[in-house]
Amino acid sequence: MLETNIDDSTSENLGFVLEQLFELGINDAYFTSIQMKKNRPAIKLSVLCKLEKIEQVENFVFKHLSTIGIRKYKVDRTILKREIKKVKSSFGRCRVKVVTHQNETYVYPEYEDVKKISLKYDLSFNEVYNRIKNEIKI
Amino acid sequence: MLETNIDDSTSENLGFVLEQLFELGINDAYFTSIQMKKNRPAIKLSVLCKLEKIEQVENFVFKHLSTIGIRKYKVDRTILKREIKKVKSSFGRCRVKVVTHQNETYVYPEYEDVKKISLKYDLSFNEVYNRIKNEIKI
Amino acid sequence: MLETNIDDSTSENLGFVLEQLFELGINDAYFTSIQMKKNRPAIKLSVLCKLEKIEQVENFVFKHLSTIGIRKYKVDRTILKREIKKVKSSFGRCRVKVVTHQNETYVYPEYEDVKKISLKYDLSFNEVYNRIKNEIKI
Amino acid sequence: MLETNIDDSTSENLGFVLEQLFELGINDAYFTSIQMKKNRPAIKLSVLCKLEKIEQVENFVFKHLSTIGIRKYKVDRTILKREIKKVKSSFGRCRVKVVTHQNETYVYPEYEDVKKISLKYDLSFNEVYNRIKNEIKI
Amino acid sequence: MLETNIDDSTSENLGFVLEQLFELGINDAYFTSIQMKKNRPAIKLSVLCKLEKIEQVENFVFKHLSTIGIRKYKVDRTILKREIKKVKSSFGRCRVKVVTHQNETYVYPEYEDVKKISLKYDLSFNEVYNRIKNEIKI
Amino acid sequence: MLETNIDDSTSENLGFVLEQLFELGINDAYFTSIQMKKNRPAIKLSVLCKLEKIEQVENFVFKHLSTIGIRKYKVDRTILKREIKKVKSSFGRCRVKVVTHQNETYVYPEYEDVKKISLKYDLSFNEVYNRIKNEIKI
Repeated sequence: MLETNIDDSTSENLGFVLEQLFELGINDAYFTSIQMKKNRPAIKLSVLCKLEKIEQVENFVFKHLSTIGIRKYKVDRTILKREIKKVKSSFGRCRVKVVTHQNETYVYPEYEDVKKISLKYDLSFNEVYNRIKNEIKI
Repeated sequence: MLETNIDDSTSENLGFVLEQLFELGINDAYFTSIQMKKNRPAIKLSVLCKLEKIEQVENFVFKHLSTIGIRKYKVDRTILKREIKKVKSSFGRCRVKVVTHQNETYVYPEYEDVKKISLKYDLSFNEVYNRIKNEIKI
Repeated sequence: MLETNIDDSTSENLGFVLEQLFELGINDAYFTSIQMKKNRPAIKLSVLCKLEKIEQVENFVFKHLSTIGIRKYKVDRTILKREIKKVKSSFGRCRVKVVTHQNETYVYPEYEDVKKISLKYDLSFNEVYNRIKNEIKI
Repeated sequence: MLETNIDDSTSENLGFVLEQLFELGINDAYFTSIQMKKNRPAIKLSVLCKLEKIEQVENFVFKHLSTIGIRKYKVDRTILKREIKKVKSSFGRCRVKVVTHQNETYVYPEYEDVKKISLKYDLSFNEVYNRIKNEIKI
Repeated sequence: MLETNIDDSTSENLGFVLEQLFELGINDAYFTSIQMKKNRPAIKLSVLCKLEKIEQVENFVFKHLSTIGIRKYKVDRTILKREIKKVKSSFGRCRVKVVTHQNETYVYPEYEDVKKISLKYDLSFNEVYNRIKNEIKI
Repeated sequence: MLETNIDDSTSENLGFVLEQLFELGINDAYFTSIQMKKNRPAIKLSVLCKLEKIEQVENFVFKHLSTIGIRKYKVDRTILKREIKKVKSSFGRCRVKVVTHQNETYVYPEYEDVKKISLKYDLSFNEVYNRIKNEIKI
């Protein structure tokens, strides 16, 4: 996990950085609001990535944010076995994440496909998500 | 200002809703993290729009989030005179917001243009933003 | 809407106050984290209640939190027609909120019943919630 | 410390999970509001527990939240020597936490007892807390 | 209440602005972390002031933050009668706020005096605060 | 990194503690808003310091906050080479941080000097910051 506290970038710049970070092939990145000294409402950027990506992420962060220090610590991860599958739903073909845990199988419709279907049929995200989830038995 | 507290939607759904809200021609929309009863970490959605948009926004929110109540109160706004102008910068033509306040004129480069230039020339957002801001005298 | 910024109470006290506030018959109450002067991470308490409850709420807040000022402003509310109904589900009888909006009817299982069923059958909250939601057609 | 970012659960579900987690005999659990990609206001769940509890906590989290990954890292803890004692106060017997640090002894009244007394005598939480704290000399 | 959402200022600048705002004789000012479109972690600045201060506050905000719009709405306030009194404590003279509510009188030691005493005698803030509070009977 | 969750201190006390912590020669300290059990909106204090400072920081925290446990884990840091230099600007002499990363040199004006100049010339923080940044070429 890489973390850095940012008190001299604008929100616009932070939004730009979050989106571009994912282009580097990281596992995850997110912001946490923090409160630093001298009454500064600031942002902690957290980036989760493989060891071999660290240098690339650090160079990116040093270039794009005016931070001068990045903290690092190792985290283990317990990851469930998952697979992206294309399935048939009443909305046509769409992707779902199939996750297995202790002899149970869970099906989670993929965000981008749910979004597209919602927009195409003018339905709510929740309705599409739940209908696909209920239709698909794996 | 329209506001609603949401404790039964997922983050995925909320992200979808925020993006789609802007398609309705509202002035602004944003999330605030709140803490509701029964240990629920929840989200307050705030939408700023013209009076004639309220019904459309309410219908959208009731359809897409499982909320059953929306709060409303009138806010006045002091808005600075601003203009979007196309100007020449050392990176080529780009848009800037020109704002006037008490005989002072401020120039703010437009986010989408700064983003495109940053990606094209592989420069940091800040560097592009500041260089354009300093070059343009209006 | 009643609001007050609190910088001299403990979190324990705030949790106690939130729970007790609901005993007064208010519509809603929630916390927002804010940042006040002198580097103080503080809490804004918001209470939504009917006009005739205001005095009772104010007396409660003045007594239980060491705040000396409460802000107030009027908010309108658009509330969907809703009804709590007892329905038969595969888990036995349970309550659902039935909400009507633009010729559509939505069914939301009640939190306390979902909770009880989850604990009784050792199932996840989500699974119980979604199964009841899908079974009930009104 | 176990941590997981949650973007596909509702606040109702999260509140349920927080309460139930404590039934597993963990040391602590809490939520932090974070901001994930694609405009998602999300929640980080942090759970502190002994090594031998990890598997049980992970199974619980995988079952109740639709997360597919949990991060883990080891933390040391400096814990002050503390003891729960039953003492006599002007409100009757109540429990206090007695903590020793560098030859100083601190007395902290227990939350649940302060709560009960506050409700019984219709006094503010703070008043009961401080009166007990001042009365008890150990 | 004046409010403005800020997505193009740095934390350093925001800290500076919060401190300077109090020089204008406002009633209160504070920050709330919000999440705006395009993945921007941003800050809402709220300023509470008398009607006759509004113009001065707006000019200050427009000059110091690159915001181009400020929202305004009227709030009523219920304020308890309070008085700053100089009292004798075992640490010497110090100021306390004396607040009256429904025939009860509360005494709250003033922050700046508690701070000074804590630093002078190398005691914790809480200890000084509570000792003064308990000593003073008004 | 030292971390502790605080649910029984006031915001006033926390602000006092943050300021005093920096007197101990730590690297950084900041607050994060969290949500603990029993509906408690609480604060996580994070302190980054050298190994040899840990005991001093722990003693300070145990004395000033009524916490009874502090978590600790080791973090590595990637720190850019930086130097504080006094330079001549159109506002007179001021300090800037000069940072080197991959053959690029960045100049960041020092907060306290920008603040002083802003107040002296009645200019906005941003304007002073950017003018110094643009003038100084190293």
